[in-house]
Amino acid sequence: MKGIDQPEAQKRFKSLYLINGLIIVGSALSGTAMSKDHLPSWNDGAAKQEITRFVKDVATPGGPKFVPAAERIAVFDNDGTLWAEQPMYFQAFFAFDRVKALAPLHPEWQTKEPFASVIKGDIKAALSGGEHGLFEMVTATHTGMTTREFEKIVIDWISTAKHPKTGRLFTEMAYQPMLELLAFLRANGFKTFIVSGGGIEFMRPWAERVYGVPPEQVVGSSGKTKFEMTNGNPVLTKLPELNFFDDNVGKPVGIHQHIGRRPIAAFGNSDGDLQMLQWTSAGSGPSFALYVHHTDAEREWAYDRTSHVGRLDKGLDEAKAKGWTVVDMKRDWKVIYAFEKQ
Amino acid sequence: MKGIDQPEAQKRFKSLYLINGLIIVGSALSGTAMSKDHLPSWNDGAAKQEITRFVKDVATPGGPKFVPAAERIAVFDNDGTLWAEQPMYFQAFFAFDRVKALAPLHPEWQTKEPFASVIKGDIKAALSGGEHGLFEMVTATHTGMTTREFEKIVIDWISTAKHPKTGRLFTEMAYQPMLELLAFLRANGFKTFIVSGGGIEFMRPWAERVYGVPPEQVVGSSGKTKFEMTNGNPVLTKLPELNFFDDNVGKPVGIHQHIGRRPIAAFGNSDGDLQMLQWTSAGSGPSFALYVHHTDAEREWAYDRTSHVGRLDKGLDEAKAKGWTVVDMKRDWKVIYAFEKQ
Repeated sequence: MKGIDQPEAQKRFKSLYLINGLIIVGSALSGTAMSKDHLPSWNDGAAKQEITRFVKDVATPGGPKFVPAAERIAVFDNDGTLWAEQPMYFQAFFAFDRVKALAPLHPEWQTKEPFASVIKGDIKAALSGGEHGLFEMVTATHTGMTTREFEKIVIDWISTAKHPKTGRLFTEMAYQPMLELLAFLRANGFKTFIVSGGGIEFMRPWAERVYGVPPEQVVGSSGKTKFEMTNGNPVLTKLPELNFFDDNVGKPVGIHQHIGRRPIAAFGNSDGDLQMLQWTSAGSGPSFALYVHHTDAEREWAYDRTSHVGRLDKGLDEAKAKGWTVVDMKRDWKVIYAFEKQ
Repeated sequence: MKGIDQPEAQKRFKSLYLINGLIIVGSALSGTAMSKDHLPSWNDGAAKQEITRFVKDVATPGGPKFVPAAERIAVFDNDGTLWAEQPMYFQAFFAFDRVKALAPLHPEWQTKEPFASVIKGDIKAALSGGEHGLFEMVTATHTGMTTREFEKIVIDWISTAKHPKTGRLFTEMAYQPMLELLAFLRANGFKTFIVSGGGIEFMRPWAERVYGVPPEQVVGSSGKTKFEMTNGNPVLTKLPELNFFDDNVGKPVGIHQHIGRRPIAAFGNSDGDLQMLQWTSAGSGPSFALYVHHTDAEREWAYDRTSHVGRLDKGLDEAKAKGWTVVDMKRDWKVIYAFEKQ
């Protein structure tokens, strides 16, 4: 199948079917080449082969590497692994839009950084404060309301806001090959979790629709919430205080806290995912660790060791040393986004 | 079926079958009264009727109260709801046994309360420090090791330690009617979670075996953990610092943090569960809230408004005011523990 894209393959098998005129031949080919290819957007290279071999190994009852379904836990980073993260984390676009929307209520922001730069539309200056500045904006715009109010704000934004480069909804910038991988794992008895440095409440409102991952299988960074009675109704209010930072060394901690058992497969794209991959690989049974390497400057972005967003440096060295799977986006993925196929 | 216990009912149906001599009669009776009764340890009173009606309502496609399977989240308190909690929380027995086991390494405990009283076997004096003293013992005995080492300690203890009154393993003191209820909910598409004030790492090692609840569906109190490399191996070390206290107002917070959507059914037994029941009942769709009321001094324990363990006071008033289901253990449960049937 190498080098043959899906529509062409279908044509070829149809021809075969007509020439032979035997239903059984058509079925057999369709069984092996079409219905059985659960990863049609992946080129048939090492990455695809390693994934399919691992999944087959752990899901084959009686096989030497069989893992009971209850233990087939797979964890995925989000930014840069399941959807794009350039020119900045998509949640930063959300925070910027919230700053602009809330600016009339905060006259003090007109002269206070990083808010003032956001309001002026100077993104570069707004980001010059690094993670601290971003955290300040997230705190100011993601708290002081109920969890339900925040959920509604996220749903409204994610349904309408567009990415400045592609002009697409941010959810359309989910990677088609990774969506196929999530579905392929679930079809083989895996429970798929997101374990992201992004906000847990920013991802949950749309993760089920976009990734097929229900809220209870989303792990992320979070602020504290407080239970209160308001007019006799119980509400959870979002407080301006960090609860948990789910990145780097926080990822295995978050996995332990939320999932309570060690995953057997982990998927990431940056040094922030390294500890999650290390933790997953250190189990006593079969395990799988994969890095998505951003190598496609034309269809997506190319960046790794020196990038400010999604830096992949130590992780790339460790992947080579330990024989982890590294996806070369340019070489391994037939399409990046589903909309390319339209 | 009211007032007829299961073996007697089986005898009666057998007789009917013999008198009539018709297979179809026997099957019909067996179908309605035996195989279809998923809650055989429940007497046929209001509580059982309210449970079965709710479950049927939300699981009937096209019905006015139908709830999609993904939203059928049920949350259960553990101590006093799924297993007994007298004369003290079972995790306190565990902490006491750990204090005794670790005493040789801590000569200072011989003169330091509450440790000294535990070592002397004076439980009453050991508990006189209240929750603070208990927390101190839990911190001293549940930390300073890896999560994996702690898991092994829990498994060893829970497999061997016996309850002082019943002489049974603590896991044998799970309530048979609640085990049936958990299975009944799951058979109707519910995802069942434990949401307990008890330690999350104390419950997870055995909750799947005893309750059918996997680790990722256990929510509880926790200490902080730290990711570290030890001899090139990643470990999570348990720190002597509280991460989250999952009781009272903490339960809706824990539910939001771990599950991320509002449950539609909640089961508790004490005022510590009140906010969880309030939060569950405040959803926009159908919901169900149930209190287990400990009324059986003979087969179990009878306690409510003035008990130090599992106090049910405000909750009982609110249950009456809001029409929540209240289980009268003495009246509603045919058996408390599975071992009674042996």
